[in-house]
Amino acid sequence: MSDNKSIVEDPNSAKASSRRKFLGQAAAVSTVVASGSVAANNLPPNVPAWQKHLGKPVNSNPYGQPSKYESDVRRLRVPWLTPDSIASISFTPLAEIKGMISPNGLAFERDHGGLPTIDPKQHRLMIHGLVDKPIILTMEDIERFPTVSRVHFIECPANSAMEWKGPQVGRLQFTHGMTNCCEWTGVPLKYILEEVGVKPEGKWLLAEGADSASMSRSIPMEKALDDTLVVFGQNGEALRPEQGYPLRLLTPGWEGNTSIKWLRRIEITAEPSYQREETSKYTDLLNPQDPEHKDLIGKAYLFSWIMEAKAIITFPCPEKPLKGHGKYVMNGLAWTGTGKIKHVDVSLDGGINWQQAELNGLVLDKCWTRFSLTFEWNGEEILLQSRATGEDGYVQPTLKQLRKARGVASIYHNNAIHTWKINKNGEVESVQV
Amino acid sequence: MSDNKSIVEDPNSAKASSRRKFLGQAAAVSTVVASGSVAANNLPPNVPAWQKHLGKPVNSNPYGQPSKYESDVRRLRVPWLTPDSIASISFTPLAEIKGMISPNGLAFERDHGGLPTIDPKQHRLMIHGLVDKPIILTMEDIERFPTVSRVHFIECPANSAMEWKGPQVGRLQFTHGMTNCCEWTGVPLKYILEEVGVKPEGKWLLAEGADSASMSRSIPMEKALDDTLVVFGQNGEALRPEQGYPLRLLTPGWEGNTSIKWLRRIEITAEPSYQREETSKYTDLLNPQDPEHKDLIGKAYLFSWIMEAKAIITFPCPEKPLKGHGKYVMNGLAWTGTGKIKHVDVSLDGGINWQQAELNGLVLDKCWTRFSLTFEWNGEEILLQSRATGEDGYVQPTLKQLRKARGVASIYHNNAIHTWKINKNGEVESVQV
Repeated sequence: MSDNKSIVEDPNSAKASSRRKFLGQAAAVSTVVASGSVAANNLPPNVPAWQKHLGKPVNSNPYGQPSKYESDVRRLRVPWLTPDSIASISFTPLAEIKGMISPNGLAFERDHGGLPTIDPKQHRLMIHGLVDKPIILTMEDIERFPTVSRVHFIECPANSAMEWKGPQVGRLQFTHGMTNCCEWTGVPLKYILEEVGVKPEGKWLLAEGADSASMSRSIPMEKALDDTLVVFGQNGEALRPEQGYPLRLLTPGWEGNTSIKWLRRIEITAEPSYQREETSKYTDLLNPQDPEHKDLIGKAYLFSWIMEAKAIITFPCPEKPLKGHGKYVMNGLAWTGTGKIKHVDVSLDGGINWQQAELNGLVLDKCWTRFSLTFEWNGEEILLQSRATGEDGYVQPTLKQLRKARGVASIYHNNAIHTWKINKNGEVESVQV
Repeated sequence: MSDNKSIVEDPNSAKASSRRKFLGQAAAVSTVVASGSVAANNLPPNVPAWQKHLGKPVNSNPYGQPSKYESDVRRLRVPWLTPDSIASISFTPLAEIKGMISPNGLAFERDHGGLPTIDPKQHRLMIHGLVDKPIILTMEDIERFPTVSRVHFIECPANSAMEWKGPQVGRLQFTHGMTNCCEWTGVPLKYILEEVGVKPEGKWLLAEGADSASMSRSIPMEKALDDTLVVFGQNGEALRPEQGYPLRLLTPGWEGNTSIKWLRRIEITAEPSYQREETSKYTDLLNPQDPEHKDLIGKAYLFSWIMEAKAIITFPCPEKPLKGHGKYVMNGLAWTGTGKIKHVDVSLDGGINWQQAELNGLVLDKCWTRFSLTFEWNGEEILLQSRATGEDGYVQPTLKQLRKARGVASIYHNNAIHTWKINKNGEVESVQV
């Protein structure tokens, strides 16, 4: 057990009595009402302006928008990271995300040839290659199949890539924001493959997008017949353009770019197609010259599909510092491409002692899972870490362990334990320990 | 068992072989590719325009929007239903909704005094009345509490009210669209009540909104301490203005208007407060004069909080007719305010024979649940019905049963089994049988 008892709440303590302490903190910024100050009409003294006048007509905007007071909650690019804005990335503002769903307006995107504007009436999906009956399907055809809806995360394998060599971006949105999690609706790919009849030698498929990059990846048949979907719905509505409108592949738990957006073609093949975006990119040459990692020289981390277990604390974080001493609920997100999250542990001393966090809400397969831990902060410096463990027993590694396994030349698949340093003034910075 | 075998798929038949028939239908509108027609470069002959040019820059819109091709998917009002657009309703386009989440831009709203624009920095929640320590909380205070995220439906008790006396609106959006289902994030109300300390005589609470109607309802303490939340998050982002930004009460499974929007005040009381919107409205005088229902004369359906079990077929429906003969997957939504959906049954002959539908996706407490049933349509007229059964054993009634129990003067709580008539041309209309 931890020796951090002074700052971590004993999980066995009476919850009700511990919760009362939130008020002690809250009272610092809120007003305790003296019984005499509540007016006879039972309204607080200051009735706000918006209660004194009729509001806007109902459905002024038939497609609703966020409040104007949320205008700073936005996806952002990192201009120096990508050479232009066509092959680029927008990051989810994770510090502002609530629950397990990423809202459609804020879900990260990675485009390789810009964002195409596709007319769904003209869009087609061709399935050909090693099949009995090649076919071209319209959107209407696809929507005739039985559909399923599943909540799954998507993560770019380059998420946290900027952190391999030390903290470069002092913001949660940029250290971990190449991920989103939505309810996706579509057709299991296996139903469509049954229609065309895959020949026995068809062991792979090539999926291609209708963007200017013709973004394409090879997918083994085993994944295609497992949980891969062809989706047209996202959080209850049609896919957003940034997510592949009108149609994308969804390979749950795998590198985000294998979930080919603007899906137009699936070719059944005997072997992988070794496309550009799975050989020159999205592959890590392990350690080209490092004598300390001789066994890795000349080897590559190729077809590294699965996004491994990862947890990140979303409060506190650089965007959301602590404000004054007292009791806080630390909050975070965990996910793994192999299945469900089994548990998440949190350290307040840079990884020496660990406490098990509480999992909040639904714990679903290949889905963001919320965790939280109550702690008391009295102004000391803290090195805050979170560590995910999957139901398969895989434990999120330290950066040191990752470097030992993969050398120091990697770009992708950085799922190392991340450290937030809480400074004495409550501000939070990204550090490596 | 049903004698509808000719049009309903035997659920025990081999699924794979039955699915293959979807192609038979699909082929009517799609193109089967002759093996010679796939060009040497493996691209379909017509490479679409959007694949030949770079797309738009990434994050051109840092808060993303739907495709322009979805511009007809909108909330709508029924102008004749409400005397003005300030106290009015916008309906969810249920025929276009996918999965169990209603997208924030399309979630139905019911406002009683228009839509207020509230500055969250100035917004306050006062809790007073029969408490040890009355208090006024800021949004920042509220967000300091432990939070939970839960997916729950909200339904206006007036949903389907227009259908009591026969079909008046020939559109699913209007017969059933006063409902939405979102992932809500917030604080269990009991945590806040623990902070203020409810006095033993405090058995009710009055919740009041900061809109110009000061919309208010009485809630029994039992519900407040059970699953009631004070929420600030909706599908991963801040509440939308139409849903009560920045703060609303959420009383899962209860009449939508008890989930007070723009929540500013909770007063603990000994008795219900008998507010306007729970006495003159949202109460049904049962049968003022009907001699056939003598026992109901002078009685009222008051504090009728729970939204009873209900199922509705969302495809086919008036907005989504059948197009040609063949195999189809019927799709629908079911929910109940008492807990989970146990099963949904479907009839194709106006309620004589019933088939159990498949429940798709997650089956959650007080949450939209998807159901589907595969059927073959060969051009005959069908009277299509769906009937929800809750885990409490409650079975969705017929309109006749409802009228027997509540007379013919009701406005609210019409959860009767609904009938879609499929005409020989595939078009769908709302009928009563």
